Amino acid sequence: MTIRIDQKPQVDFQPIHQSVPITFHYDVHFTRGLFETNNPLLAKIMVADRKARIKQAIAVIDSGVLQHHQQLLKKLQDYSEHHQNFFTLVGKPIIVKGGEECKNSPKLIESIHAFIDQVGLCRHSYILAIGGGAVLDLVGYAAATAHRGIRLIRIPTTVLAQNDSGIGVKNGVNAFGKKNFLGTFAPPYAVLNDFNFLTTLDDRDWRSGIAEAIKVALIKDADFFEFISIYVGELVSRDRSIMEQVIYRCAQLHLQHIANSGDPFENGCSRPLDFGHWAAHRLEHLTNYRLRHGEAVAIGLALDCTYSYLSGLLSQQHWQKILTTLAALGFSFYISELGLTSYNGELFQGLSEFQQHLGGELTITLLQEIGKVREVHQVDLKCYQLSVNVLENWVKSQRENLFS
Amino acid sequence: MTIRIDQKPQVDFQPIHQSVPITFHYDVHFTRGLFETNNPLLAKIMVADRKARIKQAIAVIDSGVLQHHQQLLKKLQDYSEHHQNFFTLVGKPIIVKGGEECKNSPKLIESIHAFIDQVGLCRHSYILAIGGGAVLDLVGYAAATAHRGIRLIRIPTTVLAQNDSGIGVKNGVNAFGKKNFLGTFAPPYAVLNDFNFLTTLDDRDWRSGIAEAIKVALIKDADFFEFISIYVGELVSRDRSIMEQVIYRCAQLHLQHIANSGDPFENGCSRPLDFGHWAAHRLEHLTNYRLRHGEAVAIGLALDCTYSYLSGLLSQQHWQKILTTLAALGFSFYISELGLTSYNGELFQGLSEFQQHLGGELTITLLQEIGKVREVHQVDLKCYQLSVNVLENWVKSQRENLFS
Repeated sequence: MTIRIDQKPQVDFQPIHQSVPITFHYDVHFTRGLFETNNPLLAKIMVADRKARIKQAIAVIDSGVLQHHQQLLKKLQDYSEHHQNFFTLVGKPIIVKGGEECKNSPKLIESIHAFIDQVGLCRHSYILAIGGGAVLDLVGYAAATAHRGIRLIRIPTTVLAQNDSGIGVKNGVNAFGKKNFLGTFAPPYAVLNDFNFLTTLDDRDWRSGIAEAIKVALIKDADFFEFISIYVGELVSRDRSIMEQVIYRCAQLHLQHIANSGDPFENGCSRPLDFGHWAAHRLEHLTNYRLRHGEAVAIGLALDCTYSYLSGLLSQQHWQKILTTLAALGFSFYISELGLTSYNGELFQGLSEFQQHLGGELTITLLQEIGKVREVHQVDLKCYQLSVNVLENWVKSQRENLFS
Repeated sequence: MTIRIDQKPQVDFQPIHQSVPITFHYDVHFTRGLFETNNPLLAKIMVADRKARIKQAIAVIDSGVLQHHQQLLKKLQDYSEHHQNFFTLVGKPIIVKGGEECKNSPKLIESIHAFIDQVGLCRHSYILAIGGGAVLDLVGYAAATAHRGIRLIRIPTTVLAQNDSGIGVKNGVNAFGKKNFLGTFAPPYAVLNDFNFLTTLDDRDWRSGIAEAIKVALIKDADFFEFISIYVGELVSRDRSIMEQVIYRCAQLHLQHIANSGDPFENGCSRPLDFGHWAAHRLEHLTNYRLRHGEAVAIGLALDCTYSYLSGLLSQQHWQKILTTLAALGFSFYISELGLTSYNGELFQGLSEFQQHLGGELTITLLQEIGKVREVHQVDLKCYQLSVNVLENWVKSQRENLFS
């Protein structure tokens, strides 16, 4: 006790420095057939806290997943009945239309909150979010804000969600026409990657997720980029085994960065994992989300790599290799919206939005070589315009080669 | 790199254990005349991150504060003009009607978000929240969810907010008739306690905040309880110096608990700082917030101390001392709503709501002696009914003594 009643009252109160250490833990699991009754993974995770009570859980499911997995509702029901000594699935699963559009609807957040209230979930209950990245982001935000955070088990069903968006510490929904304007940092309770979900993805979604793997390879791991470029053919022909390895390594690199960056909740201005993303986010918006996230990221990567090359940072050899690999995977990296560089900078507005979202100084990640980045705080818009032209010509000449 | 391209593809993917360490830092400052142009504290804090840019800030102010400090808007304006090399106050301050009622309005959150968007705040900008605990909770939630967290500077203006609700790591608003149903854990950027705000509090608000000081003294620090009980007269007669010491020590104990509990984001079931709060929250609701928070806490403390005494845990001497101190401060600890113990348990519903909000097992903190707690996971409702009767009689006999 610092106050002594026999002393004359203090007049000077020193500031109290508060320091709150906390470590978040979660496991990212890889499995097949998560809801087969003989797969104990999910039930095990729910009772891993060794509390005797039977756990409560609700589920929110991406309608796109149900379309391709019509047995999913029944399987989930059977699974919960089979494991009724461990957990109860309360209420019917909420079904949400997947894709970026779901993040534009505040009503969906409200209805998930209302359901949580209605069935009486507590903070030690579980919310199972089954779907693509957009649904996981939406459900994550609802889960993080109810009772200051209900345990979220993410069950990502796309390549992109399994190797990037579904494994990190963020959630978010769109507001005021801005991507992820609302959201929190909230690590999940667990992530369960079921590879079986990938078999029913359409080719665009299959490919889309590879863009984030290329991104993290470019900034962190030249060997991994080499692996991807060698196995481009297998990836295009939907070789599951190669894809699973790509997902695993990509997840590992993302998780390592989050854990070791020293800034998991992004209080600084730098965000190397968002390499290529300032343009990607803007292009998603400009195309009204006609582009999927990975497709937009591929364009953003091509753009920032080209800028890196033209500004003398990246060698021509590495630049060509990156573009060739992206193209071989089927990514197209020129669309007309990329040309919006002169009309009041529709494209370049992405730079200021990026800065605003991160806060503080503009920080753009460029590539020095494959596997090695350099951050810059100023960019040359003329050089970006030139980069766009170069990409346009590159795509055109590729097409001509194809038809010649 | 764990994947080797010359090996045959892996078939078994081990779970990746993710561990994300983070430490939140913030200072709680004590000052007088925060917005006097010659007080550098606020401006200093805003530029303490040593970034060259002039900072942007918005302010959200409790209308109750403005009522008593009519010069505040002008002072704030003058202050920002005087420190224009450090920060810019963008837009006019948002004025919010204070008190618990503001936490019931989702529209207020929306309008703060809209304002943040409109003026283009980034994550390194500041939101100044000036007011009582309810306004700080509301603004804190809005700040924590915009861009995944804009820097929040809390400027608490009541005893309760300066020594408890305004210094911790939580925010929240009410929904579905439940207190703090929505909220997050989000440490502030800084807390600036300006003692001058306390001079204009009405007697109820002055007293109300002492309840949390008594609570933390009861569970943590017998010497501090002794200090309060010795200076009851000074506190009642609004001795500023004694009150400032009570606030400082109370803040210190709360901050120490949050930092050292090992569970700052309350993932466990135990929450000793919520001693007396299960009934307090319920009574606030049952009285339609006619009771202020501290008044409700005083009743909750009296109830749980009486239960502790009747169940043989707390000595009669300590129990009497606690009740006498609370009464001498002017707290009344019997209201008719406390008697709602037989009608389907209107009062006792507070126990299940408390459990639901914390999650997991019911954990109630009881008192073993002044300064020492014991947690229990089951309570005897009959003994609680008896406790209510004892409190009723205690108050009645006090009143009779007064008039005899």
